[in-house]
This record gives sequence, C-alpha cells and structure tokens, in this order.
Amino acid sequence: MRADVHRFVISDPGDVTGLAGAIAAGTIDPKEIVAVIGKTHGNGLVNDYTRGYLTFALSTLIAECTGASRDDVKRRVPFIFSGGVEGVLTPHFAVITVSPSDAPKSEGGSALAVGVAFSGPVRAADVGREIQIAATADAVRRAMGEARIERPADVHFVQVKCPAFPLGALRAGPESPVTDNPGKLMAFGRAASALGVARALGEAPLGRLGENAVLSDLDVFSSVASVSAGVEISALEIVVLGMSRHWTGTLAIDHAPLRDALDLEGFYGLADRLGLSPRPQVPAAQAARIRAAFVKCEADRRGTIRGRPHTMLDDGDVDQQRHIRGAVGAIAASVLNDTALFVSGGAEQQGPDGGGLAAVIVERPISRA
Amino acid sequence: MRADVHRFVISDPGDVTGLAGAIAAGTIDPKEIVAVIGKTHGNGLVNDYTRGYLTFALSTLIAECTGASRDDVKRRVPFIFSGGVEGVLTPHFAVITVSPSDAPKSEGGSALAVGVAFSGPVRAADVGREIQIAATADAVRRAMGEARIERPADVHFVQVKCPAFPLGALRAGPESPVTDNPGKLMAFGRAASALGVARALGEAPLGRLGENAVLSDLDVFSSVASVSAGVEISALEIVVLGMSRHWTGTLAIDHAPLRDALDLEGFYGLADRLGLSPRPQVPAAQAARIRAAFVKCEADRRGTIRGRPHTMLDDGDVDQQRHIRGAVGAIAASVLNDTALFVSGGAEQQGPDGGGLAAVIVERPISRA
Amino acid sequence: MRADVHRFVISDPGDVTGLAGAIAAGTIDPKEIVAVIGKTHGNGLVNDYTRGYLTFALSTLIAECTGASRDDVKRRVPFIFSGGVEGVLTPHFAVITVSPSDAPKSEGGSALAVGVAFSGPVRAADVGREIQIAATADAVRRAMGEARIERPADVHFVQVKCPAFPLGALRAGPESPVTDNPGKLMAFGRAASALGVARALGEAPLGRLGENAVLSDLDVFSSVASVSAGVEISALEIVVLGMSRHWTGTLAIDHAPLRDALDLEGFYGLADRLGLSPRPQVPAAQAARIRAAFVKCEADRRGTIRGRPHTMLDDGDVDQQRHIRGAVGAIAASVLNDTALFVSGGAEQQGPDGGGLAAVIVERPISRA
Amino acid sequence: MRADVHRFVISDPGDVTGLAGAIAAGTIDPKEIVAVIGKTHGNGLVNDYTRGYLTFALSTLIAECTGASRDDVKRRVPFIFSGGVEGVLTPHFAVITVSPSDAPKSEGGSALAVGVAFSGPVRAADVGREIQIAATADAVRRAMGEARIERPADVHFVQVKCPAFPLGALRAGPESPVTDNPGKLMAFGRAASALGVARALGEAPLGRLGENAVLSDLDVFSSVASVSAGVEISALEIVVLGMSRHWTGTLAIDHAPLRDALDLEGFYGLADRLGLSPRPQVPAAQAARIRAAFVKCEADRRGTIRGRPHTMLDDGDVDQQRHIRGAVGAIAASVLNDTALFVSGGAEQQGPDGGGLAAVIVERPISRA
Repeated sequence: MRADVHRFVISDPGDVTGLAGAIAAGTIDPKEIVAVIGKTHGNGLVNDYTRGYLTFALSTLIAECTGASRDDVKRRVPFIFSGGVEGVLTPHFAVITVSPSDAPKSEGGSALAVGVAFSGPVRAADVGREIQIAATADAVRRAMGEARIERPADVHFVQVKCPAFPLGALRAGPESPVTDNPGKLMAFGRAASALGVARALGEAPLGRLGENAVLSDLDVFSSVASVSAGVEISALEIVVLGMSRHWTGTLAIDHAPLRDALDLEGFYGLADRLGLSPRPQVPAAQAARIRAAFVKCEADRRGTIRGRPHTMLDDGDVDQQRHIRGAVGAIAASVLNDTALFVSGGAEQQGPDGGGLAAVIVERPISRA
Repeated sequence: MRADVHRFVISDPGDVTGLAGAIAAGTIDPKEIVAVIGKTHGNGLVNDYTRGYLTFALSTLIAECTGASRDDVKRRVPFIFSGGVEGVLTPHFAVITVSPSDAPKSEGGSALAVGVAFSGPVRAADVGREIQIAATADAVRRAMGEARIERPADVHFVQVKCPAFPLGALRAGPESPVTDNPGKLMAFGRAASALGVARALGEAPLGRLGENAVLSDLDVFSSVASVSAGVEISALEIVVLGMSRHWTGTLAIDHAPLRDALDLEGFYGLADRLGLSPRPQVPAAQAARIRAAFVKCEADRRGTIRGRPHTMLDDGDVDQQRHIRGAVGAIAASVLNDTALFVSGGAEQQGPDGGGLAAVIVERPISRA
Repeated sequence: MRADVHRFVISDPGDVTGLAGAIAAGTIDPKEIVAVIGKTHGNGLVNDYTRGYLTFALSTLIAECTGASRDDVKRRVPFIFSGGVEGVLTPHFAVITVSPSDAPKSEGGSALAVGVAFSGPVRAADVGREIQIAATADAVRRAMGEARIERPADVHFVQVKCPAFPLGALRAGPESPVTDNPGKLMAFGRAASALGVARALGEAPLGRLGENAVLSDLDVFSSVASVSAGVEISALEIVVLGMSRHWTGTLAIDHAPLRDALDLEGFYGLADRLGLSPRPQVPAAQAARIRAAFVKCEADRRGTIRGRPHTMLDDGDVDQQRHIRGAVGAIAASVLNDTALFVSGGAEQQGPDGGGLAAVIVERPISRA
Repeated sequence: MRADVHRFVISDPGDVTGLAGAIAAGTIDPKEIVAVIGKTHGNGLVNDYTRGYLTFALSTLIAECTGASRDDVKRRVPFIFSGGVEGVLTPHFAVITVSPSDAPKSEGGSALAVGVAFSGPVRAADVGREIQIAATADAVRRAMGEARIERPADVHFVQVKCPAFPLGALRAGPESPVTDNPGKLMAFGRAASALGVARALGEAPLGRLGENAVLSDLDVFSSVASVSAGVEISALEIVVLGMSRHWTGTLAIDHAPLRDALDLEGFYGLADRLGLSPRPQVPAAQAARIRAAFVKCEADRRGTIRGRPHTMLDDGDVDQQRHIRGAVGAIAASVLNDTALFVSGGAEQQGPDGGGLAAVIVERPISRA
C-alpha cells in the first residue's frame, strides 16, 4: 500500500477546480481518495458555513467522477474542515489517497500509513461521557489496524471529527446532555475524543482516562489527537496517520507537542527531526517537501502566556479561536516557510494545557535518489 | 544625559497604577518623562477610543504629580499609542525618561539617545504632500540634534504621530486634501512622514523622496520610520531613538527591516546582534534584558505571501490590521520570548513593501559587570 | 400567464429541503422557476460565501430535477442572494414561478407580472460608465416587454445583479476601470445600474441620467431599483416585477421610497395601500398574506440621521451595511409583522439619499372570495 | 424638590464638553447632579472600555467643578453607561439633577421623582443568590423613600448596576460563586437584581422571587427593572425614577413592558399615554419634548421570533447583544422620532421573556401653558 497527499489552494470554499484538474489529468484516482482535511475561509465558529460548502462541492465532484451518490461518498470519505485562515494562512485542502503498490518495501524501512474509521451514531447525551471515550478508542484501534500501524508510538496524528448539536437538538433528546450550552458541549466532545485517542494509544494510565477527567484533569492529554466538532455529522469520523513498515512510498510523518503559544522550539525541533534544516527558517527548497502540516492550539484559559496577560478571552469582537489560530499559525508558517497549514483551535486535552501539538508530513529526500 | 525605559503592563486602558507606583516610589521622576509609547486594548481603527483613554489617564496623572495642566503635559510629552493587542500580545506602555548624568561615559562607547520634536500645525490639505514630508524631515533633524546623534546610521527608530481628519474636517477646509476618504488620507499621511524620515536620514536619493513617491514608488522607504495617524493631534509628534557617544547608561538599540510577514530571520538576526542569543528563541534570562520592542508590519497588498494567497484584505469581519498585527506580533514574540511588544500595522513605506521593520531596546550585559 | 411566489425559510445556506419537498409534492414545477431571490446567513461583504453556497445547492437541485446541467440552470435563472440577516431577520429565499394559465383575467384587473433578462458580458472597465447604464436600461426594457408591463408606473421592483471584480481582475484588463478599489467599484456598479433602471422607466430627465451622475448627483435616483454586485457573475441579471392586465392570479405588488432610516411612515403607508391594515402593526392574519418583501437601505453617508450623529460609518468591528440592515430590517419587520424580508444595503441612487425603498408582494383578499 | 434631565450627545467617550458648557453657563449646578445614565461607543461587552473612559472624564470634570475628589464624586453619583450604539442610535448621556424648589406643587398633581441608593459591598459568591436579591430590594426601598414615591405603581424605571467579576477574581474568593463563567455570572447578577426590584415593588408573589427563580422561572420578572453589570464597581448602584406628588416640575415618566422584539405596539402605546401622538411616528415637534428614553431588550433565547428563526445566537462575528440593540433600538427610534436612546441588552427577567421594557421621560405640554 502507498499513501499519497496532495494539497490544493482554494480561491473560495466552493473551489474544487484543483482537484478536478488532477482527476482529469489522471494524477488522482477519485476512488482512491480516503480522506480530505482542510482549512476554509470562514470564522471556524458555529455560523461557519464554508466547511459545509466545501464538503458539498467536493462530495458532488467525487460523486460525479465515480458514479456514486453524494451520500455514499460522504459515508466513505471523512471530509474534515476547520474554518479560519487568520493572518498569513492560506485556504486549502489536502487529499489523502491510498493506492495498491507493487514497489518493494525499503529494507527495514517504513512509510506514511493511513487508516480511516467511523463509529456508530453518537447522541447528544453521549457527548463528553464514557460512551464517547470508548467509541473513539475503539475506532482509533480499528483505524490503526486498517493502517497496519503496529506500535502506538508510530501513530503521529489522529484527526477526529465528532458530532455537535444545536440548542434545539440538545433539548429534544430523552436523556440529559452533560451541558445545555451547545458551544460548551463541543468542548466536552473534543476533550472526550482526545481522551479516547489517549486510551487507544496508552498515552496515560487507564485510570486517569475516564469521564471524570474530561475538561477537568488537564494534565492528562493526547499528544497526537486533533479533534473538531461539527453539527453536520452524526458519528465519529477518524483518520489515523502514522508510520508503518507495511507501507511503501516516500512520505513520512512526525509530530511534537507544543507547551504553550510561543513554543517556537517545538516547531523548530519537529522540522529538524524531519530533516527540514531550519536555520531558523526552513529554506524554500526544503519547504517544497512539505506535503501537509497540522497544528492544534488554544488561547491559554488562565489568561496569561509566560506570566504576561493576553486579551484573547475577553475580546467581544474577535473570537479567541480566531486570535490563537492567527498567532500560532504565523509562528508555524515562519518556521516551516509554508502558509497552507491546517491550524485549528479548541485544543482541550490535545497537547499540554495552554499549548497544543503539531504534525508534519514530508516527502523524504531519499525518494529523490 | 541618560535615557531610561520602563515598561508597564496594563489591565485596562485607564490603568496607570504601575506608573503611579513608580512615581510614588521615586523610581521615575515625572518631570523627566519625555515620551510614552504603548499598545492599548482597542481595535486600532477609527473607533478605537482606548488610545485617547490612556492619554487622558496618563496626562492627568503626570499633571497631578508635576503641578502642570493636562494640556501643558500633552504639549510637552508625545503620547503615542497603537490599539490592538491581537493574539499573544500584552497591553502595555513604555515610559522614556531622560535624566542628567554625572556618570563618566564609557571609553569610545555610546548609549541609547532620545530626542523629541513637534512640528507646527498640519492641515488636512498638507497631508500626503511635500509640506508634510518637509515638516517631518525638519522635525526629525531637530530631534536628532536634541539627541546629539551625529550620524544617520546611528538612528534606529523614529516614531512619528501625524494628524488624521474625520470626514467633516476634510470637507470644511478651503483647500482640497489629496483624497476625501479619511482612512485613505491616513495612509497618505503615514507614507509622507515615512518619506520625510527617509529624507532626513538620507535613506534614498532626494529625487525619489518627493510627493510623487507617496504611496506610489513603494521601493522607496525608510527602514527606521514607524508612523501612526490619529485625529487627537494637530501637529507632527516625533520621537527619535538611536545611539550616541554623548549619552551614558546601559541601554542600547538596534533595528532591522522585515522583508515580508514571515521574516523570522529578520527578528532572529536582530536579536543576535543585540546579544540576545536566540537558539532559536531568546532564553528567558536574556529576554529579561529587553526594555522595549517596536514592530511595524502590513498585510501584503498584492494578496499573497511568498506566492500563496492570504485572505486578510477580503475579511469583512476582522480588519486586515488586526490580522497582520496578530501574525507578525506572534512571530516577534516567539523569537524575543516577550509579548509586551509595540506592534503596529499600516507600514506604508516603512520598511520593504509587504514587510516592515523592527527595533529593540535592551539593557547591555556589560551594565551588570 | 400566472406568477407565483413561494418563500422558504432555510436553516443553513445549503438547505434546499423546503424547495425539494415542494417539487416532490408537485407544488412547484422546477421548470417554471424563473428567479430566486433571498437572504443568506453571511456578512453580505466580499468574503460572504453563503450566497455562492446557496446558488450551488439550488442550481444542483434544479438541475437534478429537470435534467439540465448546473450551468444551464444558472444561465436561465437569476439567483440573487444578499448576505446578512442581522437582528430579527430570517434567512430565506423566495422562488418566483411563471405558469401558463387558462384562468379568465379579472375584468379590468391586473396581477403580478414578472420578466427576466440578461445583458451581454460586462467588463471591469464598463462598470460605473455609460455602457453599463445603457445595458441596464436595455435589459430592463426587454424584461418589461417579456412581462408585458405596459406603463413604467406599473413597475414596482427591479432587482439587478451586476458583476463585481476582485483586485487581480481589475489590474488585468486592457482598459482602466473607474477606480482601482474593488469595493468602491461595486458602489459605482450599483449606482450605474440604478440609473439604468431610472432611464428605462423615465424616472428622471434623460440629461441627468448620464455617467456624470453616477455616485455624484445623488438627487437623481430610481425608486424601484435594487442593485447588488457580486463576483460570481459576468453579465447583468435583471428581474422586473410589476402589475399587468395580461397576467392572472391573486398576487399584487406595490412599492414606496424611504426618505431616511427612520421612515416608519413609508412602511406604514405601503402596508396600508396593499390593504394590510397596520394599526400600527399588520395583524398576524393579514401578515400571512405577505409573499415577499424587499427593502433597500443605507447608512447615511453624512454621518447623521435627522440631525443627530450615528456611528455606523466609523465602526471598525461591524460593517456599516450590517448595522443598517439590522436597523431598517427591524423597522420593516415590526410594521409588516414578518421577519423573512429581503433587506439589502448599498442603496446608492436606489431611493432618496440616506434612505432607500421598499416593495411588498401580497396575496389579495379578493382571492379568497 | 424638582428633578431635571439634560441629554448631551457626545462625539467620543471622553467628550464632556456639553456638560462643561452647561456648568459654565450656569444651566446645571454640578453639585445637584445625582446620576448620569448614557450610551457609549463601545461594543457593550467585557472589553468595552468606553464606559470607564466616560466615567473617568465625567468624574474628573465634576470633581474639578465642585472641589471634591474623583473618588468622592464616584461614591456619590452613579455613572451608569451601556456600550453599543448600533444602527441608528446616537452616543449620549443624560444628567439627572435634583434641586430644591419653592414652586407650589400642582393641585393634586405629581412630577418626576428620583432616588439614588447604594448597597454594601457585593462579593462574587453573593451574585445570583438571595443575598443579592435582598440587597437590591432593600436599596430600591431606600431609594423610593428618598424619592418619596409612595406607591410601587408610581415607580416607572429602576436602573441597577451590579458588580461583575473577571475570571481571576472568581477563583480567588473563599466561597464558590454560582458559576465559574464570568459572562454567565453577569447574567445571574442581572436576573437576581431584577427579582430584587420585583420584590421591592411587589410585582410577583414573594414565594416566586427567591434565588431558585433566578434565570430559571422566566415567567417571573420586573416590568421596570433595567440591570447592567460591570467590573468597575463593588456595590449595587440604584436609581429609581417615578412619579410623586411631593415633587414639582414639568417632567413625567411612564413605562411599558415589551412582549418580544417586534413589539411596535408597546412603543406606540407608551408614546400615546405620554401624549406624544404617534401617527404612527411621533411628530418632530412632540419628539422635542422627550428628555430621555430607556429600553431593555434581548435576543430570544429560543432562537425564534413569532415562529420564525433568527440567527443572533449563532453569530460568531457580531455578538447577540449588538444585534438586538440595533434592531429594537431602531424600532424605538422610529416610533419616538429620536435616536439618543438608552438601549441595553441582557434583559433577563427584566420584562417578558424574549422581550423587555421601555420607559420615557417627557416634558409635559402643560409646562408650556
């Protein structure tokens, strides 16, 4: 098996011309698309419809190219979009494909591996609770199995999308959700799925990964989970990315936790380990090897960064998520010399409290030999 | 003479408790205050009243402590505030004082020098035109003289505040302003004063520094000018900061142009030259030596950064200046390990097109010897 | 011929379930749809993608139901959406259909008549100039002809959509556009098409309706033109609504100019003339007869309303168009007792300066007899 | 005793020139100022510093004119400002004065009466609880006593300002506040003080006015309470306005509950009862008799208005309070023909759920006889 990643910059959230061109040119076989992850133009908040727009446009394109229905495409392919390209960031999406491969595997080597899984339906009353943690852990294990990633340490990024519920839906169910605030419930959902990833990967003792820890014991977290919530889905959608000796190809992935919003060294070290030679910035020639990058971050809930106050939590005009994406996204872009980054806020228990995590997929230089 | 700089973090734009405490403790003599430069909580746009609030609070405090009237204080001391502490930035102000000094000057050494100057009244019809360029250049030369900075190369930062005019005022005058759009006129004013600084310092051939170049020949710029415009003043207010052998003390200043919004290397090099040892981030112990830092930046008007699109110019919800301050401010903060930075947008002809400039004041290690 | 109007409230900009249901139930024949006009969830500014999303979703639905391609549908049916449902307003769209009718026409009566026309391609250099005025006037005349509306006084609402151009497109053309500011060019386009409508309907002397009057002689305006600009089209799209004795059915339309943002009496009088009996509010039973309502409004550019200042023009956080739509929309909704109104800003030369206009389509009580 | 009200339009939140002029001209005796209520330019949310700026500027002016200290002035005079002049609204403040009067009281008549009271300190743990309800009720009774208003039915408006607490303060106290969300705690505070007003005035049975009802039993409310919360105060500040036969002068006040955001009839009836003759708009000559008007409103928390959805609660770019103030403020302004209105959001248990209330002070025509 061979995984590939193609990034397409988009001019608006309905712009699928790049992918359409690649399909027409035969560069991408639409049947081999297993997931799409991207950043769209919206605000990334409840009223961000750019995610749905791109999902609609892409699923229509893939349906038309494969003869499947739009609904079939959406049941097979996770479309995971985060709104908000603040500051220097570029709207784009990354298409992940899996193809059979005859290429001999490198001696003792490994390559980018990908696995996708869906859970059963998630109800509002499940969100933030043991049932969601368990369902996430189960789906992560299945996706790892599909990806044939053998060791948890070889998993470098787990993108989870979990259902969110508008106010009306919260009140309609027979059982009480953990909160009646839709935005707060999204935070519970992100945290619970992050703990589910941590459980599947053994990132903390099982006893600390129960529902009591959700949004509560913030010292417990996953270093590879990136979770977003959206009202457009009704089940967990999971994409596991890691390294496996059962895969071939030139791509590799690595990750790093970010200890706070100023963790320049976290990005620097990650780039270094991937052979991108930041001095302090990755040179353009090396940056061309980046295939996709993922960053999760949050405005420190204690109101300070390294002892000095920030104002993100009190801003009634610009949401804290827009602030922190713009800030951490710029730091990431300045090190990686690349602005088409997936930078997402809402990092509850995804990386250290007040920080987050980063993962980068690169084409290895060896591939050019 | 000896210049000193004290930074005070503020909890709201009326918070002068830090300075009041320093005055009460005798750390700062209010009569020695020659300028105050800071970042306040507002949006940095036309309806940002936090600048005026802090000016009112500070001038009231200094008036009460010195026995002068509020108006007298404002005529003597430039209060230059930029609104907008997006992302990781911290609201604060830096008080610049000048005291007589008996200390022997270092052998052949130099120290931070400061000069302040005001122009005569500036009318709406003067903005963006030769008369403003000339008035700026003249005031810069006077401030340099006061600062006893002998060579233009020793000037590292020139903060200019120039008058802006609301719509009503634009229409009232006898002569036509260069544009009837108040926001656009602010841009003309910033650019013209930047060229005035360049003229005083010989940063470009005189022939390229006329009013034809204003907002037009963007290859012509000053690498040390930081200009902001505001309706609350009626004359140019100028603070020149540089190095001079006629001053004593432990402070030093240096600067760097920024070629674009991702110029991590520009910040890195500047920190390096000031002995702050970024690896890639300035260590906390060294960051404690930073007394003030100034950054000017802009959202690239061509809509791209290093070949990829940004969306700052098209955002109807968050102004482009808020975006770029948050992005470049985060990069600066991540290198300097300091969030109380003066980061300002609107960098027309202040540094390279699409980029900007940075200047940092540090306490030199030698002072501790 | 018989025109009908169906309004559908939408839960998000991709929600076409209401129309899909009506088509499935046979209430609406998709081939009879001649225009769709609506309000979507976005900000109504450059980066509002909700208009494009709804256009995509509706054209896909109609294409799938009629066997035509999406592009064919868009070439036949104007989809005219305005973003921004501030305050009490409800996102919705109104589908206008035309069906052949055997019903005998009322003795001497008239009914709602509709005509649609498209112009040839409009280039950036045409916008705001005579060529656009003439093209608009020509298309309006054709649409009137199609609608068989005989007298200009029987035209009560002309919705125009004109092309807008992003910065890149402005610079690419061989000829200079009237301004190089994309937002300003949109205003020129709205004004020029408004004058084109006025020319077709004889609303002012021909001599005052030339390109010199565009955005300049604001005493010259159309009382029935509502113009919006968008980058998604390349030709003028025009929908003319009026009364004609050649049409049958129970619907009627009337309109009123609005002299300023507080013209409660304008709405009151219009409701009164349509038999809606406002006392001061239209009772719910009567409000049920409203089929669609259109309002055009603007934040007074002089900065005052009836002598007192407003702050809409100086707000850096919320665009003036969002402010004025929320305000005038609420006044309209409070009189009409209906929140699913098409309320649009940018009323240059569409109604009196600082005001705007309103038009309402109702089902006449006689229809129930 | 004689109460008077002077309104001053302001050009920015530090603009006290109007009041300074009135004091200089002898129109207003600064020692007779008992309260100031107004609308400032900010967003009305946590980071709105325009309220503090105007408080600072006014207390400085009054201190300078009376020889008292700024702190003394603030301890004596409630300065109650609400940020947010969305849409057609005009920034302004209303100065309420009380003077001794020798004028004979009208036979059996009554006039505007005013009373002011402060509570003891309110801690974070008190907010939303019985202790706050009781403290509010007590202060309202004292203010009524001072105002010599004998019957609860003669109280037409009670403006309450209650303390709010930032996140840090919430966590610091020894006892737990009712919620650890600062914004939510503000809502609890507004609701509890509203119930305190209702208790003092007997607006509901005592048994329904306990802390269990706070933010819970929304059928219980005060029809005259207008409560705002702010971090700048540490005790309840209360202004009671009503009619009393012990006062003289030409001013009168009346009020009306608003059943929802479209309650045009509520405003119409109130204007009618005050003799302002709306037809449907108050004519300019009559509108000149309005001395101040107060409106409290809220975005319906159920997400609909009269059965149709609104989008205010889901908007991540513009806060729901900005939306609803702009909408209801425009309706009020259109009926009253006056834009300098105090329109405030956050109407929990202040008027009917989803609605609010209005009160207007007018000069009676009889005064001109």
